[in-house]
Amino acid sequence: MIYITRKFHFSASHRLYKEGFSDEENFKKYGMCSNPNGHGHNYILEVTVGGEVDPETAFVLNLKELKDIVQTSLISKVDHKNLNLDVDFMKGIIPSTENIVIQIWNIIKPLIDNGQRKLHSIKLQETENNYVEYKG
Amino acid sequence: MIYITRKFHFSASHRLYKEGFSDEENFKKYGMCSNPNGHGHNYILEVTVGGEVDPETAFVLNLKELKDIVQTSLISKVDHKNLNLDVDFMKGIIPSTENIVIQIWNIIKPLIDNGQRKLHSIKLQETENNYVEYKG
Amino acid sequence: MIYITRKFHFSASHRLYKEGFSDEENFKKYGMCSNPNGHGHNYILEVTVGGEVDPETAFVLNLKELKDIVQTSLISKVDHKNLNLDVDFMKGIIPSTENIVIQIWNIIKPLIDNGQRKLHSIKLQETENNYVEYKG
Amino acid sequence: MIYITRKFHFSASHRLYKEGFSDEENFKKYGMCSNPNGHGHNYILEVTVGGEVDPETAFVLNLKELKDIVQTSLISKVDHKNLNLDVDFMKGIIPSTENIVIQIWNIIKPLIDNGQRKLHSIKLQETENNYVEYKG
Amino acid sequence: MIYITRKFHFSASHRLYKEGFSDEENFKKYGMCSNPNGHGHNYILEVTVGGEVDPETAFVLNLKELKDIVQTSLISKVDHKNLNLDVDFMKGIIPSTENIVIQIWNIIKPLIDNGQRKLHSIKLQETENNYVEYKG
Amino acid sequence: MIYITRKFHFSASHRLYKEGFSDEENFKKYGMCSNPNGHGHNYILEVTVGGEVDPETAFVLNLKELKDIVQTSLISKVDHKNLNLDVDFMKGIIPSTENIVIQIWNIIKPLIDNGQRKLHSIKLQETENNYVEYKG
Repeated sequence: MIYITRKFHFSASHRLYKEGFSDEENFKKYGMCSNPNGHGHNYILEVTVGGEVDPETAFVLNLKELKDIVQTSLISKVDHKNLNLDVDFMKGIIPSTENIVIQIWNIIKPLIDNGQRKLHSIKLQETENNYVEYKG
Repeated sequence: MIYITRKFHFSASHRLYKEGFSDEENFKKYGMCSNPNGHGHNYILEVTVGGEVDPETAFVLNLKELKDIVQTSLISKVDHKNLNLDVDFMKGIIPSTENIVIQIWNIIKPLIDNGQRKLHSIKLQETENNYVEYKG
Repeated sequence: MIYITRKFHFSASHRLYKEGFSDEENFKKYGMCSNPNGHGHNYILEVTVGGEVDPETAFVLNLKELKDIVQTSLISKVDHKNLNLDVDFMKGIIPSTENIVIQIWNIIKPLIDNGQRKLHSIKLQETENNYVEYKG
Repeated sequence: MIYITRKFHFSASHRLYKEGFSDEENFKKYGMCSNPNGHGHNYILEVTVGGEVDPETAFVLNLKELKDIVQTSLISKVDHKNLNLDVDFMKGIIPSTENIVIQIWNIIKPLIDNGQRKLHSIKLQETENNYVEYKG
Repeated sequence: MIYITRKFHFSASHRLYKEGFSDEENFKKYGMCSNPNGHGHNYILEVTVGGEVDPETAFVLNLKELKDIVQTSLISKVDHKNLNLDVDFMKGIIPSTENIVIQIWNIIKPLIDNGQRKLHSIKLQETENNYVEYKG
Repeated sequence: MIYITRKFHFSASHRLYKEGFSDEENFKKYGMCSNPNGHGHNYILEVTVGGEVDPETAFVLNLKELKDIVQTSLISKVDHKNLNLDVDFMKGIIPSTENIVIQIWNIIKPLIDNGQRKLHSIKLQETENNYVEYKG
């Protein structure tokens, strides 16, 4: 097994809050992250795929194919968007980095996996100081 | 003259649009940056002050003093905020990186300048791929 | 399981040497790192915690809680300090990156672990070119 | 077990193509990467070694020893070279990042492994946006 | 005047040598950089434009326009290419970072400058450790 | 005029304090930076030289020459050293980033300047968040 990773960037806004809670309760739970008018980040996404090297191509998978899959299924839906209001797969879900990563995993995994390769991990950096990683 | 720079970070959301224009006209001018529900960035701000080295302290200015000035007058007002809706000094101003930088210059300059030192430049990075610099 | 990481910074000095060895023997073993008057680094620490996402908060743990734990129990004790002389938990221990990482693990683990989450790894970067990782 | 990593840099050129295929067929498979006159990268290599901390030295292994091993056996052979034409261990092998990583693993592993430590992983970054990792 | 910068990336190979000199003479002058089969880099280009903020758009210039200009006139000609053999504007010119920067300036300047804005500087990073800047 | 920059790294310890002042007075002036046993940093130094491109070499100056000058006259004296105790040119001088930069300028300038090139600036980064620049 060998692991290949490609990095993607998207800029999005979000607000952390729980529906049914008052602004005060949300502020207590989420601090500044629950500011009612939102805030935003330059997210950095790393998609890692594991597999054997295909002797025909010398690749686990072609990075152009990986780029096209992630661009179409994910980046086009979140880049320059509001994660609470504009993104279908985040409807009704609190947009914490943890929840975003799990949704990205669920979207990308069936598009990557086949007999020769598998999605291995999704890593999402929210700021220079924090990131989340998920391996299913 | 010697120049000292301190870096600051803030995460904010914004929307580029001109009041009085339709969403279509704004999209034509600003592309994805005019998404009605906004998007966001991890901004990186560099504040550069020029002056002589004070022989008493060996500093142009104490970085703690610079940090306190910028934190109080600026970062506390923009971090985890929506630049269109939450920030008093951006009211009625399109939040392009250029306009934000000019406002930051205007706010910080009178708090820095004295007989021995002067604000030299403000640099603001919006994404890993673009930044704006202003020297008054 | 999902993994969340927060990055911390501290600046410290140290000297690598074995007590009872001469300066020459220490220089042979540690090279420039055994300079008698010490030298220093900007250390970058990554603390990774694994757990399930709490449906109440959408977090594995609140990053503010993680920041407070690491700041109080560790960063306040090592930042702007001499690791050989000023730090209680390094007394009598050669301050190699390996030994620092093991001590950090031992300090932080009981403060993180509970039924829902566990310290997963400690990574410490000494210079841009080297780092050590420990998972217990 | 504790893991220590050292980073190395080398600048090299390469061309991705399969012998026996026409330029058109290669372009279809490899896109711009099959440009007949080649192109190049600043590669960043991370070599990670796992082991126990030696109580004599407080190290898993001395970074100077690791640097000498990798410099002599690898960097001196690939830095400022053409990976297709100048490098003995890449003869007849398509210089994809995957294939380079496997060759590096095979070269370095016998020089690192002994009773107390083992090569754990080789990570090779080709551009800011992609890297490959191999653990044997 | 306010200055806006956009960063671009390209991967290219080159060889430093003076025509009419022997390989030995070139090696003496250029060291490893004159390896006959070439080597390569991930170049990072920063294009900085100065001007007044257009009150209609709040921009010095639209970054999309800048991206299109540089992509079409420059990046498409050098990315994944051999600077000695594939690039028309480098024919007969030693591809040192200095010479590349001057050629980039000459190509881009007439495409940027108008009554309201001017190309201010071209900065080209060849490796993590060196870069060249030119302001005409 | 064209400007070429090379980056250097050194790791050193220091203590900010004014002789004749008590520890309390120094703490008031310098905060944690006056910790009696010192602390340290990974300093990043950028040396920028301006000149015309020599048509013989296509360089302003050969980076190998620049590296040798700075390595011999500076890096060998400060790397893995204590700036207060081990460095001749810092004797009796408070090792603030400002003062270090001015000393570096004074040491390197006569070794660089000749009829065709001149030292243009010295930039020294102390931590990820602050740096000082000096142009004489």
